[in-house]
Amino acid sequence: MPHDSLTHLRSAVDRHLQARLATDQDKYLTVGQEIADLYAVAGPLLERGKRLRAGFLAAGWRSFGGTALAPEEIGAGAGLELFQLAALVHDDLMDASVSRRGLPAAHRQFRTVHEERAMISDPEAFGAAGALLLGDLLLVAAQSELAGALTDPATAAASRAVFEEMMAEVTVGQYLDIYAQSAPWAEDPDEDLDRAERVIRAKSARYSVEHPLALGAAMAGANPTQIQGIRTVGLPVGEAFQLRDDLLSVFGDPAVTGKPAGDDLREGKRTVLIAAALKYASPAEAEHLKRSVGDPALTEADVEEIRDILTSCGARRHVEDLISDRAQRAEAAINELALAAPHETFLRALAQAAIARTR
Amino acid sequence: MPHDSLTHLRSAVDRHLQARLATDQDKYLTVGQEIADLYAVAGPLLERGKRLRAGFLAAGWRSFGGTALAPEEIGAGAGLELFQLAALVHDDLMDASVSRRGLPAAHRQFRTVHEERAMISDPEAFGAAGALLLGDLLLVAAQSELAGALTDPATAAASRAVFEEMMAEVTVGQYLDIYAQSAPWAEDPDEDLDRAERVIRAKSARYSVEHPLALGAAMAGANPTQIQGIRTVGLPVGEAFQLRDDLLSVFGDPAVTGKPAGDDLREGKRTVLIAAALKYASPAEAEHLKRSVGDPALTEADVEEIRDILTSCGARRHVEDLISDRAQRAEAAINELALAAPHETFLRALAQAAIARTR
Repeated sequence: MPHDSLTHLRSAVDRHLQARLATDQDKYLTVGQEIADLYAVAGPLLERGKRLRAGFLAAGWRSFGGTALAPEEIGAGAGLELFQLAALVHDDLMDASVSRRGLPAAHRQFRTVHEERAMISDPEAFGAAGALLLGDLLLVAAQSELAGALTDPATAAASRAVFEEMMAEVTVGQYLDIYAQSAPWAEDPDEDLDRAERVIRAKSARYSVEHPLALGAAMAGANPTQIQGIRTVGLPVGEAFQLRDDLLSVFGDPAVTGKPAGDDLREGKRTVLIAAALKYASPAEAEHLKRSVGDPALTEADVEEIRDILTSCGARRHVEDLISDRAQRAEAAINELALAAPHETFLRALAQAAIARTR
Repeated sequence: MPHDSLTHLRSAVDRHLQARLATDQDKYLTVGQEIADLYAVAGPLLERGKRLRAGFLAAGWRSFGGTALAPEEIGAGAGLELFQLAALVHDDLMDASVSRRGLPAAHRQFRTVHEERAMISDPEAFGAAGALLLGDLLLVAAQSELAGALTDPATAAASRAVFEEMMAEVTVGQYLDIYAQSAPWAEDPDEDLDRAERVIRAKSARYSVEHPLALGAAMAGANPTQIQGIRTVGLPVGEAFQLRDDLLSVFGDPAVTGKPAGDDLREGKRTVLIAAALKYASPAEAEHLKRSVGDPALTEADVEEIRDILTSCGARRHVEDLISDRAQRAEAAINELALAAPHETFLRALAQAAIARTR
């Protein structure tokens, strides 16, 4: 994200996060030295976040009068980043993902702890338990940072409502996502497409962009109309962000994304990309997709074949078009807000970075 | 718990919890009807809690001037009960426990959802994901209730520090617990005993009793010395509570506890009871225990044999003695507090119920 303001924000949030982890670890080491494992796994994963959510929080905050790099902005930004990692750690466990942010996924790191120390019991179960508990610990730390950032009693209740809704919504959205993955394909492809779009909104778009913007605005004392205004920027940006993510997961460069290409396909994620392909592909291709998507044993050649179908049937293009549409809507909504120039520039740069990202 | 005050508190907390779940469900059904599953699993499990933690919270709150059944007391009590269920849902998943509070454990209930709806994908994985997400959702709701109960700015920061420490400590304590279960037995039995005692303190004693008492006191505006005073009641009560739990898990009546007898043994829990047995049993018996504890295939006859060893070697008696010792310390600490008579009676009744419980 090519913006000086974001570089400063990122360093400040990073420092804050590392200090938070260090303080917590010192505090809880009295329970047992073993618990240092949790922080050893968390630190490097946390360090490698893009700070996108902290960025949108800052954009909302500054747009309505919040001071750049104020403790409230840093604390709430850190809270969002902690929550994001908590969700990723639990998601990777559920999806049995192998890697995250260029590192082994948390549950794999705990399995390695088990192996290196020649522990007894099942290494998979130990790895899963470690990741489950790490996610819980990060979730507690996230809420602590977020609540701690609400220093102004006049705006605390409205702000708290935003982040509580965000956390609950992404969790139920994730349930809808795994449910969709486990449900038989619908007879009518539009039904799967509709569900895929609802999953995107709840699990990703609102959570990654709209709620962080709204939280920053609420913390800065924006009124309900203003908060609603910035939400109308956030939703299309967030949708475009997730649609881009879906494309990257299938067509992206693993060296850049930090995740193996095709993982979404092996996990059977019912993305808008896949749902659109079922609608647009020939019956034979659609059958092929239904048989292949969700097969954990897909080879690189299988993935390549699916890529070809997704491209030739027009689904990839459909998703690209959706992204363009959302980018235009976001642009219009930003203009509508009529923010002071530096805030508008900051928000626009962030939105563009989220939509055009390559990782 | 034979106390009128507790009966009223319990009804009020129950009503509050059911209303909370209903409101949340209504709010998030817009994401997808499927998410009703989460609330369908949560409701009955939540309903069957003993409300022990809400009771201790109320004892701390009322002892330092808080009004009985005030919204703060009900809200914070509900928050503690939500957190407790979140921890249980995740614990049961990690321990692969079959039942909880007389119902199938949450991950088993989600597996049943999968089976009844003839879903595709692995039913075990779906069950695990459902329980993981339900725990997260309850954790978010818990913090929301707790934070919402802090209506007095003068006491909010100190109170928040108590529940944040409680949540983090129980999570790292749980890591220590699964770590202990996965570590080879120590050469020196005192080492295992020491770790078992640390696990009890972090994972259970402080969390179940000491922190709820301290939270109630902090919310009511007790000063640090007073909070420290009520903590000295809480720790021994909490230790006795958990030691009783360890005994019940092995020697209790499943019809009363709602959990199969011997589960701790099959899961390989390194309780004080087991660690003490390794210290006091003959070398042959100790070898037998080390081979048996943690074997998921233990039959009822195997469990009976272990019970005999735990009794004959004196470990059961040792734990009973520890419970008596903690009960006496708690009694002395309650006297030391010199509370007004009704508060002292309430606290003493709760402490006795926690220590002498049969489920």
